[in-house]
Amino acid sequence: MPLYDATVPQLSKMLGNLDGWLEKAAAFADSRKADPERWVQARLAIDQYALAQQVQGACDTAKFAAARMTGKEAPKDADDEKTLAELHARIAKTREYLASFEPSDFDGAEERVVALPFLPGKGALAGEYLNSWALPNCYFHLCMAYAILRTNGVELGKRDYIGSIDIQDL
Amino acid sequence: MPLYDATVPQLSKMLGNLDGWLEKAAAFADSRKADPERWVQARLAIDQYALAQQVQGACDTAKFAAARMTGKEAPKDADDEKTLAELHARIAKTREYLASFEPSDFDGAEERVVALPFLPGKGALAGEYLNSWALPNCYFHLCMAYAILRTNGVELGKRDYIGSIDIQDL
Repeated sequence: MPLYDATVPQLSKMLGNLDGWLEKAAAFADSRKADPERWVQARLAIDQYALAQQVQGACDTAKFAAARMTGKEAPKDADDEKTLAELHARIAKTREYLASFEPSDFDGAEERVVALPFLPGKGALAGEYLNSWALPNCYFHLCMAYAILRTNGVELGKRDYIGSIDIQDL
Repeated sequence: MPLYDATVPQLSKMLGNLDGWLEKAAAFADSRKADPERWVQARLAIDQYALAQQVQGACDTAKFAAARMTGKEAPKDADDEKTLAELHARIAKTREYLASFEPSDFDGAEERVVALPFLPGKGALAGEYLNSWALPNCYFHLCMAYAILRTNGVELGKRDYIGSIDIQDL
């Protein structure tokens, strides 16, 4: 499987799905006469990241996966989003960045050793980096965002989570 | 990236990680003088799957991903686990099944159209099936299990979630 396919279109789609969950969450808050901006600081556990950081984590993991696997320098983000509108903008900015990649940017990526930021001086081959770190970590932050909304009553289901699939006749 | 690498070793490792979270959850319950078996029916939201079904969902998604992408018939599971011991056994059984696959079983898999059980008569090419359904769905159930434990106070962190990475010097 091409590393591009496993990274760019899939993670961009998932970030688009996340954008939709935030829309549903805002509408749910409105329906309960609650301030939708409360979502930004909502969290599952007192010692876990809030929704804003889950969104930042999902966006960062996708951005760095594409950049590092292709040997590019990723743009910096200040991680200072404080409103739902700013979180939507962060998602849109990340999806625009992902859209700037071509499949050919990943030529030879499988031979590249990619730095692991939490292990100074160490890295992993791009395929291992993607399978063992970038994909599980991006899904982690996406799912924690989903869980924060779900446990607070937002009606989200598997279809909202998965999004579109390119189907074929059997 | 070989489809085997993206499926068998990674999902087996994640199921092993899940097994460890259940051990920590049981110890946490003991430390609070609570019955660890309560975890089996714990859930994030009243209209969401309980922990048992999250474990079953993660195991089933991994089992079917390996079987369907290689054109094999997956063994049936009754999904009747009612105790933590039975959930551990389900995870072990699934990991044994995954271990029965060789990289060569995936030869030609990228050309295979794999049935999507929730869309009768429809399927997706194996790579699309893996990227758009099997991986996000398996991580979903893993993360919901993690979220159920985390929101109930179990001390789990990113290292428990990610597990081992095959690292290289930079």
